[in-house]
Amino acid sequence: MIKKRVFTPGPTPIHPDASIVMAGPALHHRKREFKEIFRETVANLKTMYKTTHDVLLFSSSGTGAMESAVVNLVSPGAKVVVGSVGKFGERWENLCKQYGMRAAVIRKNYGESIEAAEVDAHLEKDPEIEAVFIQGTESSTGAAMDLEAIGAVVARHPRVISVVDAITTLGAAPLHTDEWRLDVVIGGSQKALMIPPGLAFVSISPKAWERSRQSKTPRFYFDWKREYENQIKGQTAFTPAVNLVQALHQATRFILTDGVDDLIANAALLARMTREAAKAWGFSLFATRPANALTAIAIPAPLDAEAIVSDLEDSFGAAIAGGQGEMKGKILRVAHLGYYDAIDLLGLLGAMECVLRKRRPGTELGKGVSAALGVLAAETAQRLTGDRGTADN
Amino acid sequence: MIKKRVFTPGPTPIHPDASIVMAGPALHHRKREFKEIFRETVANLKTMYKTTHDVLLFSSSGTGAMESAVVNLVSPGAKVVVGSVGKFGERWENLCKQYGMRAAVIRKNYGESIEAAEVDAHLEKDPEIEAVFIQGTESSTGAAMDLEAIGAVVARHPRVISVVDAITTLGAAPLHTDEWRLDVVIGGSQKALMIPPGLAFVSISPKAWERSRQSKTPRFYFDWKREYENQIKGQTAFTPAVNLVQALHQATRFILTDGVDDLIANAALLARMTREAAKAWGFSLFATRPANALTAIAIPAPLDAEAIVSDLEDSFGAAIAGGQGEMKGKILRVAHLGYYDAIDLLGLLGAMECVLRKRRPGTELGKGVSAALGVLAAETAQRLTGDRGTADN
Repeated sequence: MIKKRVFTPGPTPIHPDASIVMAGPALHHRKREFKEIFRETVANLKTMYKTTHDVLLFSSSGTGAMESAVVNLVSPGAKVVVGSVGKFGERWENLCKQYGMRAAVIRKNYGESIEAAEVDAHLEKDPEIEAVFIQGTESSTGAAMDLEAIGAVVARHPRVISVVDAITTLGAAPLHTDEWRLDVVIGGSQKALMIPPGLAFVSISPKAWERSRQSKTPRFYFDWKREYENQIKGQTAFTPAVNLVQALHQATRFILTDGVDDLIANAALLARMTREAAKAWGFSLFATRPANALTAIAIPAPLDAEAIVSDLEDSFGAAIAGGQGEMKGKILRVAHLGYYDAIDLLGLLGAMECVLRKRRPGTELGKGVSAALGVLAAETAQRLTGDRGTADN
Repeated sequence: MIKKRVFTPGPTPIHPDASIVMAGPALHHRKREFKEIFRETVANLKTMYKTTHDVLLFSSSGTGAMESAVVNLVSPGAKVVVGSVGKFGERWENLCKQYGMRAAVIRKNYGESIEAAEVDAHLEKDPEIEAVFIQGTESSTGAAMDLEAIGAVVARHPRVISVVDAITTLGAAPLHTDEWRLDVVIGGSQKALMIPPGLAFVSISPKAWERSRQSKTPRFYFDWKREYENQIKGQTAFTPAVNLVQALHQATRFILTDGVDDLIANAALLARMTREAAKAWGFSLFATRPANALTAIAIPAPLDAEAIVSDLEDSFGAAIAGGQGEMKGKILRVAHLGYYDAIDLLGLLGAMECVLRKRRPGTELGKGVSAALGVLAAETAQRLTGDRGTADN
């Protein structure tokens, strides 16, 4: 028997409560029942974002919400800074280029992270810069950025708007939108949020709203103002992907039962287990500052990462991701996103070990899984002690 | 017992095969299994469009695909013609205005249709016009346009591109994209296609492709070229609404079992039944040329159409639509879209009659339903004769 499973950085496993409403009828998007669901869903997203800012929802890929930030915030010819350390940083570059912005690009090797000091140097050097576009997690390399530090740097420059693609970060790593003074934060449905792709979100600070009133870039579908005027009334400007909203309502309810911090702690645990397994297999991590959301494992030649991906899918029905562009064949990417627990991961690591043994005959069976178990057992012991402590008091 | 049912011009009833895959896992959008489903789905759409042109799919509302036509086809300052006889014609106006086009608007009363001769007059008068933007069905008023005639007029002007919002037309009224020489035809998932909202489509003639290479309007998420380069390989440029694609795959398979002409004949039958019922109730139709996709019924004062909508929902769980904007309270809109048969409609008409009797005490029970039955019985008799004829040969 082979069960199909996704361990990719999107799509991710779907929560059963979300599946049920996905299969149900599409509610009418102008009727009261939908409006109530919509409002509660946005409120839940705000809790996950740790923000009191407005959060708008778009029926699109995450890229659509990224585009919304560019077209609503800056006019053609505006100077901006883009952090580019992977395929999604390159997407910011392409978006800014397409809309005629003048982008100073902080480009570093794939696997590295953009540092706050590097952003600061650009902002200090050029007072005309209007916005900084970065990733929270660069999904193509598994690298995490220090959003707290970057937020603090940008906030010291009153004219500059910080824009974070947190599509893979939201629900996987700490994200304190307001406390860290992040002006615009973008999320997507198909990551830690436990539902299929098709919805994207954007949080907008008062400073970003103010700036958006000055942008001369034309926009319609992704116009913030029109959406805001509708969404405060519990509906969207255009017919939304209703079933995905209903699914998000269910999934965010589930997430907030224990809280977003628990969901993040889960991703952190799975990430630590995976990193230890990778090291025990003799591999190194591709990212210098590895994210919680996914682990990118560098696969040295003559091993071919793509062959490992195929073997896992063919023999075990398990989908993990390889590398994109020039990283193809050289890295494996294992996600830790959303509705996904330690038992899922232990099974996957065991299957990966079987595949590795076939591709690299000296592989000692059990070594990677044991290293992961070491992390899990320590965590479990700590949790049990913590629980007992609570019970005793 | 009250069952919830939608008779609105989107969302519409979901086909059960589509519901099942909506509830399933999201396939990975870069893997072979999804690519096969994607290719077959696009091929099915082409069959429904009766086209050999390229058909691209976007994860967005239908409005997103409308925007794609504007930004890919014309540059700021370009002269265009817009047909505007309802809320969706006004959407074309707003889109063209937002992107800086100079639009000559053919504006007529709500309920009227744009005629080919009116389009022709504009094209004859101004040789600088580059594109004509119209609706196939104006969903806000229930009016149908004669797309064959309009297509023929535009095709006589080699420089002009015809762009049709056929979101509500596709699968509800005849649509011969190639034969009628329609350059760009837009469809949406939540109408006759039997799946929830969240996907939109656009067919692109060689002439439209040629024109799109000249458009200087910036675009990214809705850029045709980037999508085409990905979609010929069975994938999308950005993560698509995977489950909706899987659902569309199932729904189009179902539709093509009997063929799109049968689906259209079904909508035509339901529309004829509804029109006769409305007349038997003493009402007139709001549209001068009523569409197959929906029937808009004019509700004279002191009756309030919104009260009828609420009563139907409260007493019978049946959602029909009222009027938008200044038509609010004055019209009822009953859809005939997609997975929806004569038994559904007979039940709805009966329920409407009960509500009418309450709101307008003189209403004779059974009159509207009987008129509808007259249409249905004639059609059934003809179909049975037709079938026997075939069997005898």
